[in-house]
Amino acid sequence: MTVMADRDGSARSWTLHPDRALPSDPGVREIARRLHTATSTLPIVSMHGHVDAAMLADNLPFTDPASLLVTPDHYLVRMLVSQASSSGAIRDAGVRSVADLGVGPDGESDPREIWRRFCAGWEALRATPTRFWMEHVLIDVFEAPVAPSPATADELFDHIADRLTWPEYRPRALFERFGIEILATTDPATATLSAHAQLAAEGWEGRVIPTFRPDPFLEPARDDWRRLLGSLSESSGIDAHHYEGYLDALRQRRRAFVAAGARASDHGHLSADMTPLADTDARRLFDEALRGNHSPASAAAFTAHMLFQMAEMSSEDGLVLQLHPGVVRDHDRGTAARYGHDIGYDIPTTVEFTRSLRPVLEAFGHHPDFRMIVFTVDETVYSRELAPLAGVYPALRLGAPWWFLDAPDSMRRFREATVETAGLRNTSGFVDDTRAFCSIPARHDLARRSDAGFLARLVAEHRLDIDEAVDAAADLAYRQVKESYPEPVGAFR
Amino acid sequence: MTVMADRDGSARSWTLHPDRALPSDPGVREIARRLHTATSTLPIVSMHGHVDAAMLADNLPFTDPASLLVTPDHYLVRMLVSQASSSGAIRDAGVRSVADLGVGPDGESDPREIWRRFCAGWEALRATPTRFWMEHVLIDVFEAPVAPSPATADELFDHIADRLTWPEYRPRALFERFGIEILATTDPATATLSAHAQLAAEGWEGRVIPTFRPDPFLEPARDDWRRLLGSLSESSGIDAHHYEGYLDALRQRRRAFVAAGARASDHGHLSADMTPLADTDARRLFDEALRGNHSPASAAAFTAHMLFQMAEMSSEDGLVLQLHPGVVRDHDRGTAARYGHDIGYDIPTTVEFTRSLRPVLEAFGHHPDFRMIVFTVDETVYSRELAPLAGVYPALRLGAPWWFLDAPDSMRRFREATVETAGLRNTSGFVDDTRAFCSIPARHDLARRSDAGFLARLVAEHRLDIDEAVDAAADLAYRQVKESYPEPVGAFR
Amino acid sequence: MTVMADRDGSARSWTLHPDRALPSDPGVREIARRLHTATSTLPIVSMHGHVDAAMLADNLPFTDPASLLVTPDHYLVRMLVSQASSSGAIRDAGVRSVADLGVGPDGESDPREIWRRFCAGWEALRATPTRFWMEHVLIDVFEAPVAPSPATADELFDHIADRLTWPEYRPRALFERFGIEILATTDPATATLSAHAQLAAEGWEGRVIPTFRPDPFLEPARDDWRRLLGSLSESSGIDAHHYEGYLDALRQRRRAFVAAGARASDHGHLSADMTPLADTDARRLFDEALRGNHSPASAAAFTAHMLFQMAEMSSEDGLVLQLHPGVVRDHDRGTAARYGHDIGYDIPTTVEFTRSLRPVLEAFGHHPDFRMIVFTVDETVYSRELAPLAGVYPALRLGAPWWFLDAPDSMRRFREATVETAGLRNTSGFVDDTRAFCSIPARHDLARRSDAGFLARLVAEHRLDIDEAVDAAADLAYRQVKESYPEPVGAFR
Repeated sequence: MTVMADRDGSARSWTLHPDRALPSDPGVREIARRLHTATSTLPIVSMHGHVDAAMLADNLPFTDPASLLVTPDHYLVRMLVSQASSSGAIRDAGVRSVADLGVGPDGESDPREIWRRFCAGWEALRATPTRFWMEHVLIDVFEAPVAPSPATADELFDHIADRLTWPEYRPRALFERFGIEILATTDPATATLSAHAQLAAEGWEGRVIPTFRPDPFLEPARDDWRRLLGSLSESSGIDAHHYEGYLDALRQRRRAFVAAGARASDHGHLSADMTPLADTDARRLFDEALRGNHSPASAAAFTAHMLFQMAEMSSEDGLVLQLHPGVVRDHDRGTAARYGHDIGYDIPTTVEFTRSLRPVLEAFGHHPDFRMIVFTVDETVYSRELAPLAGVYPALRLGAPWWFLDAPDSMRRFREATVETAGLRNTSGFVDDTRAFCSIPARHDLARRSDAGFLARLVAEHRLDIDEAVDAAADLAYRQVKESYPEPVGAFR
Repeated sequence: MTVMADRDGSARSWTLHPDRALPSDPGVREIARRLHTATSTLPIVSMHGHVDAAMLADNLPFTDPASLLVTPDHYLVRMLVSQASSSGAIRDAGVRSVADLGVGPDGESDPREIWRRFCAGWEALRATPTRFWMEHVLIDVFEAPVAPSPATADELFDHIADRLTWPEYRPRALFERFGIEILATTDPATATLSAHAQLAAEGWEGRVIPTFRPDPFLEPARDDWRRLLGSLSESSGIDAHHYEGYLDALRQRRRAFVAAGARASDHGHLSADMTPLADTDARRLFDEALRGNHSPASAAAFTAHMLFQMAEMSSEDGLVLQLHPGVVRDHDRGTAARYGHDIGYDIPTTVEFTRSLRPVLEAFGHHPDFRMIVFTVDETVYSRELAPLAGVYPALRLGAPWWFLDAPDSMRRFREATVETAGLRNTSGFVDDTRAFCSIPARHDLARRSDAGFLARLVAEHRLDIDEAVDAAADLAYRQVKESYPEPVGAFR
Repeated sequence: MTVMADRDGSARSWTLHPDRALPSDPGVREIARRLHTATSTLPIVSMHGHVDAAMLADNLPFTDPASLLVTPDHYLVRMLVSQASSSGAIRDAGVRSVADLGVGPDGESDPREIWRRFCAGWEALRATPTRFWMEHVLIDVFEAPVAPSPATADELFDHIADRLTWPEYRPRALFERFGIEILATTDPATATLSAHAQLAAEGWEGRVIPTFRPDPFLEPARDDWRRLLGSLSESSGIDAHHYEGYLDALRQRRRAFVAAGARASDHGHLSADMTPLADTDARRLFDEALRGNHSPASAAAFTAHMLFQMAEMSSEDGLVLQLHPGVVRDHDRGTAARYGHDIGYDIPTTVEFTRSLRPVLEAFGHHPDFRMIVFTVDETVYSRELAPLAGVYPALRLGAPWWFLDAPDSMRRFREATVETAGLRNTSGFVDDTRAFCSIPARHDLARRSDAGFLARLVAEHRLDIDEAVDAAADLAYRQVKESYPEPVGAFR
């Protein structure tokens, strides 16, 4: 591959260490190397992400380094902002708020200026996964000659900006280079999925697939819920302004997603509660909400009821139900109002699964066509609730460490807290959740390294045979992801 | 011993590694080996388990490998069921529910078929303590020639079935071989304890002792509570249908247990709440409950009150109060109704101790004859609540890692989260909680290895002298268990 | 220094290992040594402690080993008491309650007897930070010839008692020897701060500074709250018996503290709730409380409101707001009534930050002059709440592991749970919280070793360059502490 050509040429000053993120103990590291080698060339199956399908459908060149690598990466933006009041390079570089990194309607518009601010903040990213992934992106994807710093900012910007003009850096070329087998996007329930259709028509069928995300449509507490029912009616061709029509409209949209290749739905409400209501109560709450005549408690009860309905529909159409609860979105409401959502101000809170999932697990936990994958940013539920639940209910799998927990030490804790109770097979395999297209290989590589390190320790402690570890490493990196997200039983493409 | 004879003969293809479950770092491992060696031949004191005393009293041969090793082991059953919807060997072997492993009234009746299903699921047990213990049982107890797999299932079944006909594999022979000094069973408050009496009469006095478990008798919320009061009256010879009689009947049963050698009571309610009521309120709630005229809240308040009464009685008769709260039993009520209890569907939930234990600790926390040992499956309380409490109240000790947490990484986390605050001496020493008789030595051995590894790291980090570590290892493996469960002050045998 | 003279003389039988508390892996240890060496001679900045400024102002000799090293150290006292019912040396030495260690009005008055009890309990302190610190104090500060034991108790007592007569062991001499650059005390809002003033007048300006602790004044639930308002009025010269005067009096006291060199306030209520009330509601609750006409809920709401007011005042005068919530003080109320407070009976409970801090962070989280440092003894909030919050809000920093968590394994867990999400820079650097003056260097040394070990592993895993690690180690040990507690913007000395 052309972009690789100059790799083995002159000595590079900035490189990735081949043993990065592997355990330090020499004996364990040697085993981990072997396990990592066994997985490092496996394809990437990226079943949960936030890349825009239109980017791949259009396949236009990326415009500049900042809008590709800095502004949309909320991990990065939040960490730079967090140091805005501290003495040091970030404050001096002029970072006061997310706007200074290009976020929001009045965000900084000069990509070079944003890039300089990012480079000034490089030090503050020490020991974070953001730094680790970014090193992979810069060195491995862009062959950056030097690490970011105030002194190298312009050189790096020009280097990357140049690469972005190369055909090898168009979205589809990178997709191929990254070795992506399947990429799932996340799409509103009313999405037309036209980009997915275009890609399928061009022979990319099954490679870029949508995910059904109906969250706002299930939340009567939202100010815009009634407006959303209008969109849902229009999109589905079914009047969603009465309870039965509303359910039918959602079923229709799920079918449309299945037809477009979707394998999963995704649900990110604050609570994991999935308690169903009696039909008459659900209908009454729906009608009250439609008239704006609902309490916060009744709205929450309706959302819980609808999660149960989603589980029931999943048992019929086979979409895997992904649950991502426990995050207070837009913690700083003023910042959200001014600059928007998904910009680093979402903060986890406690979450409960043992009682919340009970109704669904009692109803569908042994259903052969139902699969639920649960993610958490509250680590306390790993050993207390999720591993015990996933270790008995056939329908339940534990998702990979999510969001803030998608990081080396956190991934290790996840395995240490869940494997003894749930085993290795009752987990989803690695699921990245990235908006940063170029970081997909970095994330999968880091997860494979982390799992290699975990399994290597078990081998070194004579708790697992090396042959079994090699097999398990490939399961976690690749096979188990595909097996966790099967093609829906109701697929009729 | 005959059964050992062929051990040093021809090369065995399947063996236990002498360093299994010891730390991988070579320097730490060497210290850990030394610590493990110092404890590996100490007797087993098994102060909390679920073995049936009648098994030892009758001393009949075990019937077959499946009913001995598979069906009663809920760790194993649950993990096999959890993979029933997944592609792979377990589903192909015909595991759909616990019944396919022999559980419940309509359970599979062919032990060979059950055994084959277990062998098909061997892979799914990778990296779990169930696998680790089972390897110990198969290799060390049964001298199995090969590891379980679909191909070896019948050979293994026949091998073990043959051994079960040998006199060396009768229950008492295994008890001796395992080096068990004391084995505590768990018995309903109304148990006749006849098997214990028979064993004592045959010279086994003090070797197999009962544990007083009154849970259902303390829960007016149960449907069968009034019926249980009848049993309690009959068993104690005291009319338990009024509050004072009820308390007296419980006291009588405790005395009977003490007379039969019991050292502890055991309490496994959902909540750890031990708040006492005023006598008049307690009497009123009792009367209301007797008339079926109680609310869930008043029933829970009465149970909390009765836990306080148990503590008070403990301070009088010296039975150690074991508390095992925080588990939602029979999470899938349909499965429980169909197949029974204790089959893998019990799921932990959050538990609170700081406020819950306060009344009892204020009343009896410094009482020289009161001892309470607290267990948890919610790890969050280790460093936050239990270690601080056990690190000041003389009457309180932390129990060993319980249930799902009785596993290598979990045991390490327990020590790391508690020792710095509570020290080593304020813990119970190792307490297995097994129903699987043959796994008792495996469990004690794994715990000794785990503690050896923990202590060895402290030695390697110059946080503990080697001599102190050797001493502490023996404390945790043996001496501290005996010291934690002293003979009751009220013992009058 | 004279007291060091005999160090290199004859072989000492009891020494500190140079690698103590460094990781055991040889490769990691070598890196850790280098990092520790780079920080071991940095000055100590002790921004949160409970040393009495009068001790330094008066500079009198310490009276005896027990009242210096045993009785005031609640870590030590609690652990000895916890073993009072157990068989062994502590019970035999006569420890029944805290009084036997000199605590409380009827406490043991013979320091030698107390010292013997401490020596008898040395074994029970195995593997605790109390042991680790005490070894440092005895060996490094007092050059003790032997470790404590029943046999050596008198020899040790005499050795230390002798040293306490030396001029080198006067408080100020030790202060200099310890290399303390700044020592912050903790002082009631109404403190005269006369000792601080005396020290400043003697040329110690800025070296011993007060911390503003207004807790009881903000808690109408207290029985003595109305009496405290009298003290506050007197101390401030402003009538604090009406709401506006009360706020002004607090502002005046804060100004007086700033004038005396304070850099921070400190707040240790049970809850972290900081929800403000409307002014009229606050005024009404104040008036009701003044008349004793408040409920527990309204008192708690008022305290939460006042925490918000403290944050607002901090944004004006620049005192760093330190929050230490989540501890049930005086868990055994009988013991507290008999022996006093702060004697080891304070027990952590769950704490919540995501919602509790929201009002303050929405209001002042981006204010350039506001800084809040949050401490916890509930580890569950590290990765779930505090690291995500500190990783985005510029005003927020995570405090160092506090209290029970100020220990080697706990400190490691703190870094592992927070750095990936919050980075290294959004933490406070090391903050000891000691009442034990002589243990200050031991505590800082242990923290520096712990951080060296954590950073060394990252270097060994190629997650951080060695040069960056050296820089970060100095940040955490020294620079970041000073930067976290800047001189108040409103300082007008």
